[in-house]
Amino acid sequence: MNELDLASLQRRLADFAAARDWQQYHTPKNLVAALSVEASELVEIFQWLTPEESARVMDDAGTAHRVTDEVADVLAYLLQFCEVLGIDPLAALNAKIDRNERRFPPPGESRAAEEEP
Amino acid sequence: MNELDLASLQRRLADFAAARDWQQYHTPKNLVAALSVEASELVEIFQWLTPEESARVMDDAGTAHRVTDEVADVLAYLLQFCEVLGIDPLAALNAKIDRNERRFPPPGESRAAEEEP
Amino acid sequence: MNELDLASLQRRLADFAAARDWQQYHTPKNLVAALSVEASELVEIFQWLTPEESARVMDDAGTAHRVTDEVADVLAYLLQFCEVLGIDPLAALNAKIDRNERRFPPPGESRAAEEEP
Amino acid sequence: MNELDLASLQRRLADFAAARDWQQYHTPKNLVAALSVEASELVEIFQWLTPEESARVMDDAGTAHRVTDEVADVLAYLLQFCEVLGIDPLAALNAKIDRNERRFPPPGESRAAEEEP
Repeated sequence: MNELDLASLQRRLADFAAARDWQQYHTPKNLVAALSVEASELVEIFQWLTPEESARVMDDAGTAHRVTDEVADVLAYLLQFCEVLGIDPLAALNAKIDRNERRFPPPGESRAAEEEP
Repeated sequence: MNELDLASLQRRLADFAAARDWQQYHTPKNLVAALSVEASELVEIFQWLTPEESARVMDDAGTAHRVTDEVADVLAYLLQFCEVLGIDPLAALNAKIDRNERRFPPPGESRAAEEEP
Repeated sequence: MNELDLASLQRRLADFAAARDWQQYHTPKNLVAALSVEASELVEIFQWLTPEESARVMDDAGTAHRVTDEVADVLAYLLQFCEVLGIDPLAALNAKIDRNERRFPPPGESRAAEEEP
Repeated sequence: MNELDLASLQRRLADFAAARDWQQYHTPKNLVAALSVEASELVEIFQWLTPEESARVMDDAGTAHRVTDEVADVLAYLLQFCEVLGIDPLAALNAKIDRNERRFPPPGESRAAEEEP
């Protein structure tokens, strides 16, 4: 059985919170605060690194584990936030990419357009 | 064709950045900064709301759109960050939930354990 | 001798960094990242609290110490950031309050204005 | 009359909020959220810049104004947070530098210590 899709992980997170009676803390306001805190813990790993050093963080097993763990925390709070507000994160991102493709046409296309007589 | 899975969205984001020559900006360090900025834009929507008001943000169409848009931005930068570092976000979250289930046993189970002779 | 003014603390911080050869890490970009990380560590203390609980954080000595410590970290990075870019934070805030007083006239004044014939 | 000390600015901020009946929103929890949002708006200015570009942000008048404005916002929320919780930010920072001087002795001193017979 494959649990590795977003909807299943979202269900696991909801069951996890329910079993511990933690839903009372999961207001949208609290969940976005937690999300931003986890995102900052990811920033903390990179704050003093040069751009070049930042590209090599996965070379060290300890740092790689820490980075992966923070990614999980960010995704966990994002999914729980979406769950309590009924937002579909994949549909949201798909729609956003559609909008961005119209908003920022790739240079090739605008050059092609300029070449039009 | 269904594009609404994480891997496909991740590919769309990579193609989008490549077509605009934006990959040069996408160091892990810059992407986590952008991720944290987007998470804060989500916090901004909620910062003066009471817990109760925060639970009703989707009732207003304009706010609902803004919230959904910021969710998309957070997910976009998280997926791009994972892409450049070769992290599987779903596997990361699955492993994290496994660890948390061992770390925080649900009250029912620990009570059961205590009842064991 | 009174060291408790911003300029003296700013000088202590600069001397502290220079003595440890840490200035090389103190690019404006790195310092704002560190500032935002410290601000998030302050948020972390409050993330699951109700508004009422958040007003009582100083009642517990351990939490009071943690809050005060994070305030110091936020101020330290803000002052170091201002130092490297030559920004006067007090003048900046004074000018901002001036602007906000014009931008958001207090209700009494606008009512008075409306009552003008 | 010189208003450019922290205590006077803190009083101006408190008067400003009181005149607009905004104190009701100024729970410690909300103020730290606002503080972290403003810190992120500062990060946003730097997120795609190289370390070298980040050192030159004040060369452009528009960016310099934006940076200075965000510094003011961060300081404003930090001072209001300290006000509602009765924290002295200067004393907090002074004590923190004292602790850090003990925690991170400068290399010269530890070398001197090692050279002691």
